[in-house]
Amino acid sequence: MTFQVPYATRLAVCGSKHLALYQAIRDSIVGGALPSGERLPSTRQLAELYGLSRGSVSVAYEMLAAEGFVRSIVGRGTFVAGGTTETGLTLAAADAKPASPSGDAEPALSAWGKRMMQATLREPGGAAERSSAAEAEKISFVPRGIGEQWFPWMEWKASVTAQWKRLGPGESDERFVTEGSEELRRAIAGRLGRERGIACAAEDIVITGGSMQAIALLSQLLVESGDTVVTEDPCYPGIRQAVLSSGASLVTEPVDRQGIVPQDWEARMLFVTPTRQFPTGAVLTFERRLALLDWASRRNAWIVEDDYDSDFRWGGRPIEPLKSLDRGGRVIYVGSFSRSMRREIRIGYAVLPRSLREPFIRAKRLYDPYPEGIAEQRALAGWMHSGGYDRHLRRMRRLFHKRYELLKAGLSRGLAALFEVHPADAGLLLYARWRADPADYDRLKARCRTYGAAWGDGAKYAAAGRESGLSVVFGFAHLGEEDIAEGLSRIRRAAADLGLLSGNETKGERRDGGHAARRTGIV
Amino acid sequence: MTFQVPYATRLAVCGSKHLALYQAIRDSIVGGALPSGERLPSTRQLAELYGLSRGSVSVAYEMLAAEGFVRSIVGRGTFVAGGTTETGLTLAAADAKPASPSGDAEPALSAWGKRMMQATLREPGGAAERSSAAEAEKISFVPRGIGEQWFPWMEWKASVTAQWKRLGPGESDERFVTEGSEELRRAIAGRLGRERGIACAAEDIVITGGSMQAIALLSQLLVESGDTVVTEDPCYPGIRQAVLSSGASLVTEPVDRQGIVPQDWEARMLFVTPTRQFPTGAVLTFERRLALLDWASRRNAWIVEDDYDSDFRWGGRPIEPLKSLDRGGRVIYVGSFSRSMRREIRIGYAVLPRSLREPFIRAKRLYDPYPEGIAEQRALAGWMHSGGYDRHLRRMRRLFHKRYELLKAGLSRGLAALFEVHPADAGLLLYARWRADPADYDRLKARCRTYGAAWGDGAKYAAAGRESGLSVVFGFAHLGEEDIAEGLSRIRRAAADLGLLSGNETKGERRDGGHAARRTGIV
Repeated sequence: MTFQVPYATRLAVCGSKHLALYQAIRDSIVGGALPSGERLPSTRQLAELYGLSRGSVSVAYEMLAAEGFVRSIVGRGTFVAGGTTETGLTLAAADAKPASPSGDAEPALSAWGKRMMQATLREPGGAAERSSAAEAEKISFVPRGIGEQWFPWMEWKASVTAQWKRLGPGESDERFVTEGSEELRRAIAGRLGRERGIACAAEDIVITGGSMQAIALLSQLLVESGDTVVTEDPCYPGIRQAVLSSGASLVTEPVDRQGIVPQDWEARMLFVTPTRQFPTGAVLTFERRLALLDWASRRNAWIVEDDYDSDFRWGGRPIEPLKSLDRGGRVIYVGSFSRSMRREIRIGYAVLPRSLREPFIRAKRLYDPYPEGIAEQRALAGWMHSGGYDRHLRRMRRLFHKRYELLKAGLSRGLAALFEVHPADAGLLLYARWRADPADYDRLKARCRTYGAAWGDGAKYAAAGRESGLSVVFGFAHLGEEDIAEGLSRIRRAAADLGLLSGNETKGERRDGGHAARRTGIV
Repeated sequence: MTFQVPYATRLAVCGSKHLALYQAIRDSIVGGALPSGERLPSTRQLAELYGLSRGSVSVAYEMLAAEGFVRSIVGRGTFVAGGTTETGLTLAAADAKPASPSGDAEPALSAWGKRMMQATLREPGGAAERSSAAEAEKISFVPRGIGEQWFPWMEWKASVTAQWKRLGPGESDERFVTEGSEELRRAIAGRLGRERGIACAAEDIVITGGSMQAIALLSQLLVESGDTVVTEDPCYPGIRQAVLSSGASLVTEPVDRQGIVPQDWEARMLFVTPTRQFPTGAVLTFERRLALLDWASRRNAWIVEDDYDSDFRWGGRPIEPLKSLDRGGRVIYVGSFSRSMRREIRIGYAVLPRSLREPFIRAKRLYDPYPEGIAEQRALAGWMHSGGYDRHLRRMRRLFHKRYELLKAGLSRGLAALFEVHPADAGLLLYARWRADPADYDRLKARCRTYGAAWGDGAKYAAAGRESGLSVVFGFAHLGEEDIAEGLSRIRRAAADLGLLSGNETKGERRDGGHAARRTGIV
């Protein structure tokens, strides 16, 4: 029997048991805790629960019934009035009103809390992504992971449900190990050795819930108020948020076409995306990699290498990850499967220098002693062993490579006067600078809205007040080939409406999207 | 094609392409990144990958083969030597040695990191639980959740796999909402209203990965260095760890038989377990509850109410949770399903005052923007709607109530001279004070080890240096009735060996465990 009303509260005030019970149940009905149609316990049950006589409970129920709060149905029980009972009978409504919100205190946040609120206010992050995802009718190039339709859900679900079925009595205690599935950590270590040249073992790896968990924990563990931390500019906003929340001063170092330009920062930590700078796509040169490692060694600083989508490379030669070149144990390598699989698959990991292993595990344990989603972790390990993960990657690479070429060609053919696309030989988005008059940017955006097309603002990734000129991102991994073509066509039509395209480009438009443009009567 | 060796590193040093490739592959083999038996890419693939001529790659492969690092098998490919190839052929071993660990820097942790290391060092937590779980042959009363055998795995797994099968294209965007499944939050709000008298709605609730995530985030969000925070003494060590990591001064307030004794603490926050004090089992009186609320209101302080196992109540009358009495929005109610279900089910939640909702969600989002385990969250919501969760609870209550009575009777009958059991009318463990000479405690523990019996040390829960006298905990939810009886019998035999039981109690032993005692020839 679990049932609770504010009996003790009322008893303390009025002293009479049956009156206290009557008031307690009435309060719960009026306050909304006991909804209409809810069946109340029997007098026997309630008497036992609160140590009352059945007579006292009956008196309380009679008082409630008399005032219309409850209704007793012979052979069925006592129900809260004002709705439909479990048995389908409609009861007379009592004067119940919805729960009034209790007066709330103003929150006095900690210094961390205030910084976090400030940092996340400036950069809304998740919320923006969600609202854009909701606008389904529109062709949106705002990046949002891999399309549902490309992900082999059936195969993946079969792997996870198979692992789920295996869970249960007699299983190993891996479910209670903070660092996550050993099988998965071993599989990741194997892949990193073969494919990225990183020699590490399962015990160097900790599985996290996405890569942001690793980044936030590392900021907390290694950085404090007053320290200086360097991030690339532009970069993933979550990294800046984590750094600013930790209280560090943020140095946002602009990237050029070869990535971040090494400096002799007086800093404690550097976040960097060498394989493919996020979001510009620049590949950090080998010389700069060595310079960063040299800097970290001299300054006794940490480098967090975020290798967020190295699985999707379209050309160029792979340059060694910082981690594979790290002799001093200064590099923490962070990876994630949320980008190569689906965003809702919350599996990321950190490869830690030996000295940080124990502190990182303990920090993670403070938030949750056991791993979440152990069945998914094991399913991924199994998928790697069976070759399923590689098959998925090969298939995605083929699909996305075509889309990448299509988008790149479309942007450079018809829209080159507006968008200067950065060269990128990897990844699932294209980054471009706005070439035309800044005043036309918003006009084109608005016009595109009426055509049902959108792209991502680069401003989201730029450090506050830093952006020189406007930049944009075009994600393509969630869009089909036809959507990409149609989306580009809509943007071209909108640009043509506004007279932003030269004659040459308008002709290009006539060739591949002419019928649509003619229909609108503009060309 | 994903394959990586330190080619750029070598090229930078030696200048010659084929020599650089040879050295890069050799390094990867010697370093362990390319294990024995691994198949190398074809010369064509490798030439394409690194922008070399096939001739250069062939020369590098020949050099590697000449030194015994690789072996080529006609029609099959080139393999790393020293093991078995994919095709089952054994290759000659090269002089490969295991990866040498890279020299590691000493970690310089942040102030938070140092405090966290200090706080978690004193109280090992998870690790201790794991090692005790590993000693399977022993009957251990060290609490460790609900036994695998009592949990309806088949039913639960069917619910989760059904939700897994529903995931996929076309699903709602609930998977991307930081606060977790709305269906589950609504179901929890309904239960809290009916069973705990807490009027709240789905939007007041945030799902967390276990209750520790909520506790750690709240400490971070609301407490800072220099603040004072009050915890009960004894209490769950994770709470102290989170508070100490935040930099607050910790006031550990001793509890008596009615729970924590309210004071006019100059503090910012209080963690309290009113329903059933952890681990002593004391129920906080109604008057004290009101006094705590009054204190929070006057001091403008926060109260975190950890209602960790209110689902298992064996007697007494339920007193209103602080949250149901909270008019000022000062109480944060934290709950968890890891205790009523299985520890590896990482679903907890916080019911937040309106003013804290947004800060808490943003803090959680910093660590991971999307919820983990959405299929499990939905499965739990479905289990609640279908009545499955209630059936499970009813069954557990019946089972555990019997075990609780059995353990209580066994401790008070045969072992009352040693253990003074605290009265507790709820929960899955019994707390007791060691009555005898402290010097005998370790002797009995050691003796019990030889018989294969153990209990939990209360010291784990006590504030450092605070414990007056020794205390113990006996968990029973993972043990069968026979195990409980046999475990108690072993402890009695061990105590009898050491002459710690009076004649009367030894006789009690003879009655219910006499054959075992006789066998050892002691009575």
